[in-house]
Amino acid sequence: MDITEESLRLHKEWNGILETHSKVAIENREDLAMAYTPGVAAPCEVIAKNPEAVYDYTLKANTVAVVTDGSAVLGLGNIGPAAALPVMEGKCALIKRFGDVNAFPICLDTQDTEEIIKACVALAPGFGAINLEDIAAPRCFEIEERLNDLLDIPVFHDDQHGTAIVVLSAVINSLRLVGKSPDQVQVVINGAGAAGIAIAKLLLSYGIANVILCDREGILSEENCKTDAMRAMLAISNPKGLKGSLIDAFKGADVAIGVSGPKAFTSEMVSQMAPDAVVFAMANPIPEIYPDDALAAGAKVVGTGRSDYPNQVNNVIAFPGIFKGALEARAERITEAMKLAAAQALASLVSDEELNPNFVMPDPFDPRVADTVAQAVRECALGEK
Amino acid sequence: MDITEESLRLHKEWNGILETHSKVAIENREDLAMAYTPGVAAPCEVIAKNPEAVYDYTLKANTVAVVTDGSAVLGLGNIGPAAALPVMEGKCALIKRFGDVNAFPICLDTQDTEEIIKACVALAPGFGAINLEDIAAPRCFEIEERLNDLLDIPVFHDDQHGTAIVVLSAVINSLRLVGKSPDQVQVVINGAGAAGIAIAKLLLSYGIANVILCDREGILSEENCKTDAMRAMLAISNPKGLKGSLIDAFKGADVAIGVSGPKAFTSEMVSQMAPDAVVFAMANPIPEIYPDDALAAGAKVVGTGRSDYPNQVNNVIAFPGIFKGALEARAERITEAMKLAAAQALASLVSDEELNPNFVMPDPFDPRVADTVAQAVRECALGEK
Repeated sequence: MDITEESLRLHKEWNGILETHSKVAIENREDLAMAYTPGVAAPCEVIAKNPEAVYDYTLKANTVAVVTDGSAVLGLGNIGPAAALPVMEGKCALIKRFGDVNAFPICLDTQDTEEIIKACVALAPGFGAINLEDIAAPRCFEIEERLNDLLDIPVFHDDQHGTAIVVLSAVINSLRLVGKSPDQVQVVINGAGAAGIAIAKLLLSYGIANVILCDREGILSEENCKTDAMRAMLAISNPKGLKGSLIDAFKGADVAIGVSGPKAFTSEMVSQMAPDAVVFAMANPIPEIYPDDALAAGAKVVGTGRSDYPNQVNNVIAFPGIFKGALEARAERITEAMKLAAAQALASLVSDEELNPNFVMPDPFDPRVADTVAQAVRECALGEK
Repeated sequence: MDITEESLRLHKEWNGILETHSKVAIENREDLAMAYTPGVAAPCEVIAKNPEAVYDYTLKANTVAVVTDGSAVLGLGNIGPAAALPVMEGKCALIKRFGDVNAFPICLDTQDTEEIIKACVALAPGFGAINLEDIAAPRCFEIEERLNDLLDIPVFHDDQHGTAIVVLSAVINSLRLVGKSPDQVQVVINGAGAAGIAIAKLLLSYGIANVILCDREGILSEENCKTDAMRAMLAISNPKGLKGSLIDAFKGADVAIGVSGPKAFTSEMVSQMAPDAVVFAMANPIPEIYPDDALAAGAKVVGTGRSDYPNQVNNVIAFPGIFKGALEARAERITEAMKLAAAQALASLVSDEELNPNFVMPDPFDPRVADTVAQAVRECALGEK
């Protein structure tokens, strides 16, 4: 099967994978009078008097906007808002399928930070949360941060935090498998963009002692930081002040994480890692190193972003449950603690019996996944209130 | 049954009448690979190369944004965007139920004309049409006009044009019933807001010779015009230059249309109309005159906005088919000719045998309605291309 041809055929047949519909049959004048005028005036008046009631009488309580500007879509780059729509629809379909949360795509015809922020603020009254998707760095950082300050609903950039949560869950279980303690391991992350920085931050929050961030020019240092976000990482990562190229960071490392580009890792690099090394090579479709090569070079656990190898790092095990839990708790933001709780909940779904080098994360179709993540996020959010 | 209590109970039970869902089951890794990555990249790339393909591969082809700023909601006034959400959800549910067109509510947290226009332009890439709803005059005029110039999708303010289309269909059939010719009748419209002006314009487009627009200060004249929109009507209405109060406009009138307020029409006024008078008193919930009083005063056909009297003027017979037809033709705007075609299609659905003083418009649950309107609108739109 040619995936491209089959996907085009199906998407054309579907003419949009997502649709809206009424939960309620409207079959006679009485139904009409309840669904619309005059009946509908009653909840409107209640909400006008008590704004919180919007969560009781409307879809806001259980609905996410999936917002993009089309500037960093999959590996395709800046293809614009209309071309990004299939991804956003697909994401909405997954949020509903796995989290039982409504989601609707919003593809914005602007790539200006201020205009994106304004548009999100403008449309916030009808949504319970915002999923920012495929928005390029560094504007994605500012947009997410400012929207979380401006709005009383959570704003979550899944490309950063969803990825970080799933990677952390994989790291937790990989260390559990090889019997290493987070406060004693060295983790190399190659790729200091939005995802790489979010992963680094969450691993640090979890208690990984030694995270070394690298990009094309090697280990991050005062000299080669290109963005404010990279610079902010200098103070909290690389505690031993290691300098040099990527291979220097690999020496003795316990975990290597790639969110960079095809073939960025070599067998030589992996062979210089500590015993029982863990490698997540997530560049798509061509990983930083193919699993067979990493294993041959001595790695014990290897994962990629692909579905045709073991240990696929797939955000779909995280975001549906995260939105579900945050909405249920009516959280105003997704905090660091909620992300940690989600990662730990994911890790906990792999039992000691199941845990092995080819299985460190739960399957997306494991029916417990979304509810387990949602419960962890909800309880954490309610505990913070 | 207390409508308010029952409506609150139902809306709370529903927790939003509208929901989103995936058209496609996602039950295994193959489904996931098509609905999302890597399969979804294929339609994205096609759209990036050929922007028109967005109509083939996404929900845009069949999806309407129902946009409000919450400034003129039902008869409740300026209750804001969150309190307007139940109305917008209900409207979306009706668009889907009757027109088989997806619709999603967008409640904007701004009542500034420029900001509303910007927000609509920003979110247009993902929608095939925009339904403006419950936005106060006069800003609704400017917003609609400018958006239709700025965007290549139709922008339709239903409170104006949907109402006008349904009223025209009722007038067409009422005149057919009483055997009067449009070019010989005098029509009084009381209420020179958004709906009244839209009705006046469409009746004139249809060929009604003599339309007299009134508001609280009586017949519109150079002296009492309060808005640019009212002033623009002076040149094209009231060809005999009638002056005075509402009762002066009623003298000898064949049709009286109320989009004003409770009890604005008296029995005395109606009694001074021409024989076989037609009265549509659409103030809600208390009409300009109750049907029994109007009939007692000599009217032949009476309609209201209420579902508990005959001849309810209900936009739901128009807007679902209008959007369906406009989307099918991929019209860039809803033109005057398309509105006329919709009104005539609606009128045509009442056969000579069915037509009587208590039945001048088709029933909303007549299964032919939306498709008949859609076909008329589509054919008109394709003829204009």
